[in-house]
Amino acid sequence: MADGIGTPGTGTAAATVEREDDLTGRLRVALKQSEDAGLEGAELSAALAAAIDDAHPADVADAMADLPRDDALRVFAALDLVRAAETLDEVDPDLSRYLLDHEVPGRIAALLDLLPPDDAAEVVSEASPERQEELLEDLERRAPEDAAEVRELLSYREDTAGRLMTDKFARLDADLTVDEAFAAIRSVDPDVETLNDLYVVEPAVGHKPGEERLVGVLSLRDLVRARPEQRVRDIMVHGDEIISVSVDTDQEEVARVISKYDFLALPVLDRDGNLAGIVTVDDVVDVLVEEQTEDVLKLGAVQQRHSEIPYLSTSVLATVRQRFGWLLLLFVASFLTAQVGEHYEGLVGRVAALASFVPMLIGTGGNAGAQAVMTVTRALALGEVRFGDWVRVLWRELRTGLVLGGTLSAVGFVFVFLVMRQPAPFAAVIACSITGIVIWATIVGSILPIVAKRLGFDPAVMSAPFITTLVDATGLILYFNVARLILRL
Amino acid sequence: MADGIGTPGTGTAAATVEREDDLTGRLRVALKQSEDAGLEGAELSAALAAAIDDAHPADVADAMADLPRDDALRVFAALDLVRAAETLDEVDPDLSRYLLDHEVPGRIAALLDLLPPDDAAEVVSEASPERQEELLEDLERRAPEDAAEVRELLSYREDTAGRLMTDKFARLDADLTVDEAFAAIRSVDPDVETLNDLYVVEPAVGHKPGEERLVGVLSLRDLVRARPEQRVRDIMVHGDEIISVSVDTDQEEVARVISKYDFLALPVLDRDGNLAGIVTVDDVVDVLVEEQTEDVLKLGAVQQRHSEIPYLSTSVLATVRQRFGWLLLLFVASFLTAQVGEHYEGLVGRVAALASFVPMLIGTGGNAGAQAVMTVTRALALGEVRFGDWVRVLWRELRTGLVLGGTLSAVGFVFVFLVMRQPAPFAAVIACSITGIVIWATIVGSILPIVAKRLGFDPAVMSAPFITTLVDATGLILYFNVARLILRL
Repeated sequence: MADGIGTPGTGTAAATVEREDDLTGRLRVALKQSEDAGLEGAELSAALAAAIDDAHPADVADAMADLPRDDALRVFAALDLVRAAETLDEVDPDLSRYLLDHEVPGRIAALLDLLPPDDAAEVVSEASPERQEELLEDLERRAPEDAAEVRELLSYREDTAGRLMTDKFARLDADLTVDEAFAAIRSVDPDVETLNDLYVVEPAVGHKPGEERLVGVLSLRDLVRARPEQRVRDIMVHGDEIISVSVDTDQEEVARVISKYDFLALPVLDRDGNLAGIVTVDDVVDVLVEEQTEDVLKLGAVQQRHSEIPYLSTSVLATVRQRFGWLLLLFVASFLTAQVGEHYEGLVGRVAALASFVPMLIGTGGNAGAQAVMTVTRALALGEVRFGDWVRVLWRELRTGLVLGGTLSAVGFVFVFLVMRQPAPFAAVIACSITGIVIWATIVGSILPIVAKRLGFDPAVMSAPFITTLVDATGLILYFNVARLILRL
Repeated sequence: MADGIGTPGTGTAAATVEREDDLTGRLRVALKQSEDAGLEGAELSAALAAAIDDAHPADVADAMADLPRDDALRVFAALDLVRAAETLDEVDPDLSRYLLDHEVPGRIAALLDLLPPDDAAEVVSEASPERQEELLEDLERRAPEDAAEVRELLSYREDTAGRLMTDKFARLDADLTVDEAFAAIRSVDPDVETLNDLYVVEPAVGHKPGEERLVGVLSLRDLVRARPEQRVRDIMVHGDEIISVSVDTDQEEVARVISKYDFLALPVLDRDGNLAGIVTVDDVVDVLVEEQTEDVLKLGAVQQRHSEIPYLSTSVLATVRQRFGWLLLLFVASFLTAQVGEHYEGLVGRVAALASFVPMLIGTGGNAGAQAVMTVTRALALGEVRFGDWVRVLWRELRTGLVLGGTLSAVGFVFVFLVMRQPAPFAAVIACSITGIVIWATIVGSILPIVAKRLGFDPAVMSAPFITTLVDATGLILYFNVARLILRL
């Protein structure tokens, strides 16, 4: 939603912004003093409410994340209903699940009732599975319509437009004059997410009641610009010219469309082509931050199920789990390098110095591969590169690798020959190997993400560590064969 | 700005969305046919305009990026003024500079005049330095006020709120009733960026005319919710409770505030505390995408001056320049590993198998370090970790490294002893080294970004390749000393 329900519709919060540390500190003091004084229940809540004062829900959520879980629950209990609902919407999923599982069910239902359906659906989705049905039944008793709406939203796949959308938007009739439209806006449901965009709808033909077709879109500014006697129909953008997404569109694609066209909101159509809701740009900002985190971590070979959980709130065990799979896989894969090493042990036995340069060579290959993989993965994410571009990418990276490898090989030759005082043929082995390894790593690092995407994987699984490990073994084989060739071993 | 000037104020574009490939294809055909028919000037423009039809400016910009520069200029010349202005706002900085340097100066001034000042300032900033003054003088002759506004915006440092803001926002008087406020909105300047948020201002005391103080903020929804006879003063959020940023605030911080509080717009105050403008969320979306690209590339040790330039539009030479600095630095640093290797050559001479396991050991260390550095850098960027948390981070990562390293060492022992049939003491060397190297890499990878940030650097300069190279040499020393100790060499 565009902002807290307590500060309806204003993009600029009603509450005082806190340096969150101050708020955490004040809460800690209040909790300590209350414990010392033996305060409980309503008295404890009053003391905590005084410490919270009029802090912004986003700041309260941050402060709660810094407190032990049971203290966070006490703070949560001290919030009035409206503030509690807003805060629940802001806390990270892990803490949210804890609060949902430990708070009195009746109060949660009251909170859900206060939240717009899209936020309520997100909150419910964070509860443990057995708790979800319980919450929905509670909500059903309080507000059957809201509960139905939440159930519908939850029926869409996670990370799709269906989950992000809201059905609280401003509707207009195409036949209204501009004057009448302004009058209609004055009496619009104040819970609508945005008044910047107005949606012109008519009942869907031959469908069950409540379904509506999007026939036009216009902005409040279009109304301001129009003459009073003009009709909405004449100034609106018409049906087939409206950019929209489907309930099944992936949230990354939704973010791409909104950011490309600089939209503030985007209509979402259901599977029958009827208007199901709108996605607003503020939800997209959250999506961007979330997907960004996922991408960065994936590129570092870190797997994260809930990337919204702050680093310091993640348990060590969870951190280990995020890293262990990839680390083990790459570890096992790297035994290949040991086997390559064993295979060439005779060679190393004859020229011991060969071994000393192994880390440098495969390290540089790994670095060149990491550079290529980060650049291309990012370009894929931004839609700058598609599968059809693979030949262009290959050709670009081949030349890039050639220039980079060539220059480094000159530096390497000078260093090995002059500084480390190795014989010239040996320096030549290092120089030739560097060129080859850098070109090879650059190509592998740039092409594999494209191939991965084509095969339906997230290109970011081709992480820097993955590419590095992959080019280590092949780089070694190249190196030892160059040595064999040049040194005639 | 919130959207193109041709589709004022609607978040949902008026123009047909193109599969951009189709548009590029149509333009290529039109260019080819025009060349074959010898068309030039107005005839050529007419042919191109027919191919463009009513494509969205964002799609036209994408198609232009796929064409040779001189063809892009021809397409640009074929656009009517309004569409050209919108398209100029969407093209990447490199192409923008080309267009600005090659288009007729008078036409550019006409385009700038059509753009809101914040977008005009961004366009001017993309021209070559000598051209900038020329453009501003042209604009001065056409629209002196706009030129002054653009000059003021350009006086702020790049990547600050001052550069992102616009002074086109809806102003209200605090003494208006709700009824009067609605009437005021009907006659507001239709060029305002948003009507969701309304800004209550009064003249700044003792300052030059035109300067105004922000006394309140309210949303259109607040107005809808209020009773007709209430006064704006009574329903607005008051001065000191308004969250705002300064003209000098970094754009990343602006993005953080807007995304944390789910704002649609944020007021910007000048150095005297007067209202200078507002930043809207759609600008923040662009900032997020841009900063995200920069971070990912930095983490891959790629330096990029203009991260907005699409990958395939970057020249190979520019790509080389982006990567060469770091690659060379890390290459030179990795000679340290060669020197470490030389130092222990005697050891390797006695136990040749030691050399075979070097790539595996330092590779695994590098991977563990990369995982830690990506996780912590991301947590720093999201504000989840601050310098004061370094002890907590150290303690977490120490335990994480211990569990990861311990588990891998068991796997390693079994593999080396049973599969590779090395003697038990040798397998123990590998096992102990892995534990040590993984712990060491995890700690270095997690602490260095925090230290870098404290020292005023961007933590992302502690890239995965940097950490990998750093732990390579130290890992080797650890390995050879463990070997010496266990194997009593």
